Amino acid sequence: MEFSSKLLENAVNEMSQLPGIGKRTALRLVLHLLKQPTDQTQLLAKSLQQMREQINFCSNCNNISDTALCEICANPNRDASLVCVVEDIRDVMAIENTSQYRGHYHVLGGKISPMDGVGPSELNIEPLVAKVKGGAVKELIFALSSTMEGDTTNFYIFKQIESAEVIISTIARGISVGDELEYADEVTLGRSILHRIPFESSLKSS
Amino acid sequence: MEFSSKLLENAVNEMSQLPGIGKRTALRLVLHLLKQPTDQTQLLAKSLQQMREQINFCSNCNNISDTALCEICANPNRDASLVCVVEDIRDVMAIENTSQYRGHYHVLGGKISPMDGVGPSELNIEPLVAKVKGGAVKELIFALSSTMEGDTTNFYIFKQIESAEVIISTIARGISVGDELEYADEVTLGRSILHRIPFESSLKSS
Repeated sequence: MEFSSKLLENAVNEMSQLPGIGKRTALRLVLHLLKQPTDQTQLLAKSLQQMREQINFCSNCNNISDTALCEICANPNRDASLVCVVEDIRDVMAIENTSQYRGHYHVLGGKISPMDGVGPSELNIEPLVAKVKGGAVKELIFALSSTMEGDTTNFYIFKQIESAEVIISTIARGISVGDELEYADEVTLGRSILHRIPFESSLKSS
Repeated sequence: MEFSSKLLENAVNEMSQLPGIGKRTALRLVLHLLKQPTDQTQLLAKSLQQMREQINFCSNCNNISDTALCEICANPNRDASLVCVVEDIRDVMAIENTSQYRGHYHVLGGKISPMDGVGPSELNIEPLVAKVKGGAVKELIFALSSTMEGDTTNFYIFKQIESAEVIISTIARGISVGDELEYADEVTLGRSILHRIPFESSLKSS
């Protein structure tokens, strides 16, 4: 792509560094900004800079937070002895949306993935192990995505805390609510039969 | 979407103002930036701000340019009496890529579209009419997209310069190179028969 302006080219190049945004999309976005009032670009640029420079992570759970301790960890009504292990803030938001969970979280910041160069030391695993070994945690819930990387990460943490006295659980895998059985994949359907639950407890589910 | 951080929320909100980017995608992009070195966000923010503040438009053709006169208009080897009317810089880039055009451009900055609140006065039409009436243009080529808005804009400009002594042409509409006839739409196929060209001139086409 040849540009008639270096300024435009720089903006397009930087924009196309973002995941899923190619040069053409970047050009479309940048030309859109040019048609809007200058304010919009200023606000976008400032909000990104401020976020990147001033963003803070909760000292307890590593979730993104503007305060030293995030709202969830600071809330006395939440059960600190119940800790849900998640990958990032999006998973926290998703679980919070269900209003079904009253414990704390522990945000790892990713999954162990040798292919992407992410090893255990890159993740926030050590503080979790320390927390569990310190005896403050009664139950640990693994809520990573059900992929090779997620399973590896679960297993790695499990091995580290095996000796500690803590209940370790994982979120249920099964048929999605509203799904037709015939379209479910075999592994999910198989697991949902293996890990079946008493009918009466299914009545309490929502 | 509820955020645990105001900084994150601001960044996501501003990002999701861009066309085709919803809140979820914006969150994904912003979290990506958080994982990258601070430099990347700084460069992105600065390049957007610089572009928006310092961008310049060619005084002759209205194309985006860092200099008062764009490279094309400043090039003495290009034919100033041949002017191709296009919507925006993307069309200029597309036509330049073909290496088939040695004239100048005139960038309108959009198409007449009452639905989107874009009237003739919002576009860069007046300078074009003045240029044509001034007698400097021998041929005007309409190269707007073949839509209702494009046709309306062509017709509006045509009406303004009807009396001037200028050849007015439009880019050929027809079957795309490499396309199968049976899949072509009727209007395109119909026009391609109506506006057929001598076989010999088709041999010179590339």
